[in-house]
Amino acid sequence: MGTVMATVPPAVSGVAPASDPAPVARSATRAGPVFAPVAAEIAETDRIFDRTLAPHRGPFGPLIEHLRHYRGKRLRPALLLLTARAVGKVLPVHHTLAAAMEMIHTATLVHDDVLDEAELRRHAPTVNAGWGNKVSILLGDMLFTHAFHLTSTVDGRACQITGEVTNRVCAGELRQVTERGNLELTEADYFTIIDGKTAALTECCGRLGALYAGASEEVAAKLATYGRNLGLAFQIADDLLDLTGTEDAAGKTLGTDLEQQKLTLPVIHCLHRLAPAEAAKLRDLIRTGGDGLGLRVLAALEKTQSVAHAKRRADEFARAARQELECLPRSECRTILETVAEWSVRREK
Amino acid sequence: MGTVMATVPPAVSGVAPASDPAPVARSATRAGPVFAPVAAEIAETDRIFDRTLAPHRGPFGPLIEHLRHYRGKRLRPALLLLTARAVGKVLPVHHTLAAAMEMIHTATLVHDDVLDEAELRRHAPTVNAGWGNKVSILLGDMLFTHAFHLTSTVDGRACQITGEVTNRVCAGELRQVTERGNLELTEADYFTIIDGKTAALTECCGRLGALYAGASEEVAAKLATYGRNLGLAFQIADDLLDLTGTEDAAGKTLGTDLEQQKLTLPVIHCLHRLAPAEAAKLRDLIRTGGDGLGLRVLAALEKTQSVAHAKRRADEFARAARQELECLPRSECRTILETVAEWSVRREK
Repeated sequence: MGTVMATVPPAVSGVAPASDPAPVARSATRAGPVFAPVAAEIAETDRIFDRTLAPHRGPFGPLIEHLRHYRGKRLRPALLLLTARAVGKVLPVHHTLAAAMEMIHTATLVHDDVLDEAELRRHAPTVNAGWGNKVSILLGDMLFTHAFHLTSTVDGRACQITGEVTNRVCAGELRQVTERGNLELTEADYFTIIDGKTAALTECCGRLGALYAGASEEVAAKLATYGRNLGLAFQIADDLLDLTGTEDAAGKTLGTDLEQQKLTLPVIHCLHRLAPAEAAKLRDLIRTGGDGLGLRVLAALEKTQSVAHAKRRADEFARAARQELECLPRSECRTILETVAEWSVRREK
Repeated sequence: MGTVMATVPPAVSGVAPASDPAPVARSATRAGPVFAPVAAEIAETDRIFDRTLAPHRGPFGPLIEHLRHYRGKRLRPALLLLTARAVGKVLPVHHTLAAAMEMIHTATLVHDDVLDEAELRRHAPTVNAGWGNKVSILLGDMLFTHAFHLTSTVDGRACQITGEVTNRVCAGELRQVTERGNLELTEADYFTIIDGKTAALTECCGRLGALYAGASEEVAAKLATYGRNLGLAFQIADDLLDLTGTEDAAGKTLGTDLEQQKLTLPVIHCLHRLAPAEAAKLRDLIRTGGDGLGLRVLAALEKTQSVAHAKRRADEFARAARQELECLPRSECRTILETVAEWSVRREK
């Protein structure tokens, strides 16, 4: 399944806000392969992922093989494994749980690409572009069920935590789809959605990593909050990239949020800040769509400083995430977790 | 969520083959509400199902409410509960597991309707017809994850069994979709598909019902085999209905298999029995589709007696299912399980 990419992309200073809350962490991100201390653990997680799907290689070989394009940064396994190491020790159970988390994430990506009618992911065609929506739906289902089966080899508690978190993930995703076209969406609605679709799973990685390394409930809760805040920061940055990034750097189809009338933080903020008549005009523009929509929305965002607002919110969550780590003794892995929080709002893909 | 339909539709003698292997059981089916002895247990299962989804009624009320159209015979909960009672006693854990099985089944139906582009189920619009494919995909995902969460409240073993069985279900469904348009499909391929997509879950109901009522591994294995054979019989009959039934009686869109070039047992048998030139002509016909395809295929099936062949195979599985029950003491619930096996090949919806 290709080489393990146990690196975090370098930070890009061009997208950093004027007041950087953690210059040290940012320079650490620039330093390079920050997942290196758990690279071997990530490789073991990859092996479990592959072994789990191996029986399907007979009937569905090229399809299963194609999934490697859906596995990029291994952010979720890395979070779980780094948390485990920062708390105590990585155990075999962590590899299994990390593989399950990556599989749940992959399942949601495969289904997301159907929902978004996306054609490109990590510079490769999406499953739906290559095999159609039907295969994508069932492949996603299969990844979900294998993730649960993997978790069931650990214990009942892991199943319960994973069951709860996936409920939240799906409810967040469903809410997002049913709110498409709602151009009155509030910031509170937006945070409910991203808390489910993104932060629930990163929260779970923090919790499971800590719990199965023997952390107290109190420490596990802090690591879970770290993961949740990181996820929120990450998703705000992701939504910003969809508005302001380049497809070449991101390696996926961008601009789909606006096209699908899916409001994200900067646009919600902008609509709230504009005079009512101007906001109504912008809503009409989004509703009608058409060429040049992106540029015209960007001009409105500039006027209300809404990109800066979204970056500020993302920074707040990244900072809050880092603060939760203070319950841990200083260690290489704790530093990396701090760096990941910082990177989550600086990345360009 | 409406009233509990704890009945099995009366058998229809018109579709019974000439040599009926179990006239006694058939007349028992005619007698009426054969799930009656576990009706209260099914009602409790329904309450768990509803309670599990209750938190979603706020944001998604009408959608969750609409799911009642997806819950008809409660065959899977009934199987699990009847098995438990026939082995020993129905315990609270059985209600939870029965709700989880029904939820997995419902998840697959919601996704199936997207795959089949079906517009009608139980005389009501499908979720995809009412809310679109995107909502259907996420609602199905949510049902899967809630089913796993429910199972996790039981114990690790239940999670493991459920994880394994859903892996089989999804692989069967995926195989079916990837084999669409393969007009050389063999009987063996067909059985691999229906073993996954249908028999795996009914097998699981027999196994869980027995195991959690204190059955030995040996008895649980027999009840699992009962469920598996019942599922195979049921699916063959279902595929026959798609070819020969009426939409009015079935309450769902029929004829979709042929339209989607999805070969089922009678058509596979027919293609194998026809002279090569005739088979090639029939394949061309299926490939090109068009008006009158159904009638022309039925004429070919008549020539090769392929409907009778499929009914015979279904009867064999129903009989094999009944034989597995001989390990149990005679009881009202055992008799009902026998009747269900008989009904599975006689039903018209």
